[in-house]
Amino acid sequence: MTGIPREVLIALHETDGIGRISIANILQCGKAKGIGSLRHSADFLAGDWRDMGLSASQAAGIVANLRYDAIERRHGVHEEREIGLVTYLDDVYPELLRQIADPPWVMYHKGNWELVHNPTIAIVGTRLATGYGRKVTEDISEGCAQRMTVVSGLARGIDAAAHYGALRARYGTIAVLAGEVDRCYPPENKALYRELSNNGLIVSESPPGTILRPGLFPLRNRIIAGLSYGVIVVEAAQKSGALITADLALGYDRDVFIVPGQITSPRSKGALEYFRKGANPVLDETDIFQAYSHRLPASDIHSSSVQTSKQLGSQPENWTDAERLVYRLLLDNPCTIDELVTRSGMTFGHLHSVLLSLLIKRRIHQQPGSVYHVL
Amino acid sequence: MTGIPREVLIALHETDGIGRISIANILQCGKAKGIGSLRHSADFLAGDWRDMGLSASQAAGIVANLRYDAIERRHGVHEEREIGLVTYLDDVYPELLRQIADPPWVMYHKGNWELVHNPTIAIVGTRLATGYGRKVTEDISEGCAQRMTVVSGLARGIDAAAHYGALRARYGTIAVLAGEVDRCYPPENKALYRELSNNGLIVSESPPGTILRPGLFPLRNRIIAGLSYGVIVVEAAQKSGALITADLALGYDRDVFIVPGQITSPRSKGALEYFRKGANPVLDETDIFQAYSHRLPASDIHSSSVQTSKQLGSQPENWTDAERLVYRLLLDNPCTIDELVTRSGMTFGHLHSVLLSLLIKRRIHQQPGSVYHVL
Repeated sequence: MTGIPREVLIALHETDGIGRISIANILQCGKAKGIGSLRHSADFLAGDWRDMGLSASQAAGIVANLRYDAIERRHGVHEEREIGLVTYLDDVYPELLRQIADPPWVMYHKGNWELVHNPTIAIVGTRLATGYGRKVTEDISEGCAQRMTVVSGLARGIDAAAHYGALRARYGTIAVLAGEVDRCYPPENKALYRELSNNGLIVSESPPGTILRPGLFPLRNRIIAGLSYGVIVVEAAQKSGALITADLALGYDRDVFIVPGQITSPRSKGALEYFRKGANPVLDETDIFQAYSHRLPASDIHSSSVQTSKQLGSQPENWTDAERLVYRLLLDNPCTIDELVTRSGMTFGHLHSVLLSLLIKRRIHQQPGSVYHVL
Repeated sequence: MTGIPREVLIALHETDGIGRISIANILQCGKAKGIGSLRHSADFLAGDWRDMGLSASQAAGIVANLRYDAIERRHGVHEEREIGLVTYLDDVYPELLRQIADPPWVMYHKGNWELVHNPTIAIVGTRLATGYGRKVTEDISEGCAQRMTVVSGLARGIDAAAHYGALRARYGTIAVLAGEVDRCYPPENKALYRELSNNGLIVSESPPGTILRPGLFPLRNRIIAGLSYGVIVVEAAQKSGALITADLALGYDRDVFIVPGQITSPRSKGALEYFRKGANPVLDETDIFQAYSHRLPASDIHSSSVQTSKQLGSQPENWTDAERLVYRLLLDNPCTIDELVTRSGMTFGHLHSVLLSLLIKRRIHQQPGSVYHVL
């Protein structure tokens, strides 16, 4: 897109008063002037930044934030707080998120970043969930997580139930926070937060030091929708924040699914009305797998290949999940890279790096026509 | 279709041992031999009937039933019991029912036959309804009966609730019985039966004197489905008889609608599974009116669209979804275009055109600093 250095993008993102739109304009500006024009942006003076549309105070802010000591300080904070960073410029940036109109420029994370490359489904709903809502959320989420990673917002009620359910199954779960990635909000979900940082993934667009404010929640919701093939809404009263996520998903041309509930329940009404906007009913995970059958790994792959690998006992412990998945797919049948993209749900970029790693480890072999098979 | 006299069709229908298929064959036979060949069938001898495929006992039965005294006796019974008759040969036979694969040849009725010519919607469900099921059935049925006549089966539970609800609105309700039309079954619905014969319509395919047996209920269900544009199922356990009606409707290429309920409720499960067969969710009568907007009377459409737009807070029907979304976002709070991009998920270009359209319609206003608010 542009020749802007990664460090400059992070500095722009972390400069108070420079918003997402301003950064989009700067990237656009760099693009218009040709790749490379922003290469030396680290050395820009305030006037250069003002030429790119920033105000005087914005320009002063970014110049200060690109000084050597400021960069060092940022690095120090990220390291000390053990926060990972992925920018829009990185190959490992989630492909689905890249497609939305206003992607986050920088994502902070804790836990296993690889989860973003799995097939993903969001499950959201009201914080004031009923017992029914929490129960069916856990069940559906656990079911979905057999073949997809469940994305939600760590809120009370439906979100928490979605994370708990998904943690019980293989593909796990991603929490998208509104505030700092290393601060649990709401505090009562602390145990869940710890579980997610050990066995899942926590991401946020908010730089360390961000003060949590209401306006961050709808922004967070766009990331939940943007990361996911589709959004399941379990219970949501009219005007519930979960419906913002549903609206965003429709805006991104993603699917919205509704878990039926009683039409007289105020906790269900808002969600049920999305049937009128073309949302699909979900009774259990099979409805979701059916909707994405062409994008998911075959259902029997897991159970059968878990057995296979146990029998073989030959997959080293240090393999990544992605390597294991690709190896298992190839165990069944030699595949082209196109077929693997479809069956693994990975992006080309990610799959390419996984195949390379397996080739280097001499576990697979590439035949003419880019057909891969196991050795 | 054929030149068979009406009286002969009624006699065939009322002859024990001559079933619907035999009558279809006879009509077909008459058709093959040309109009008029059955004109004098009232004078046929047993041999003539046997030539048309009837057995000896069937032939003897119809010959006996076409004797002058037998005809007089039948007329006497119908008159005495105040039962109206409509046959497949009559112009007033319901057009929708004529289209199904196995239409009833004769329909007995009490009450206002004219109701069959209204737009019709069936509402059926389990006899063992929950309080929730009965309540939403009454509400939806009353709503539907503002513009359509509601068809059901006078059974306990959902059926009874459907009739009660519809009796409160203008287009009323039709009960299709399995047994004799002038005998109330189940007996506990006697008050409802009386109300229906005074202010609605009761129909049955079973001749006076028919002894009620289980096999008549699925036959009754085909008439419910056959009379109606579509079938709404409110609550139905797996294997519920109401689902036979839904299956028949699908077979007749009619719509099936499901009222959502809890996916954990055994009383809802059977119905909810029809979502997987392409059934549509119903939250209230507007979903039904929407589905049949092109088939409902125009004058009524006007009044109901006034209601619909009331529900939407006076947003005209001709707004696009995008306009509605942006308007709703602005209803909450005035927003800048940047905030709207984020919250709507639209691209700048699309949002710009939507804002322009809303400005032209004088529904929103632009303040200095590109802040938009509703008028």
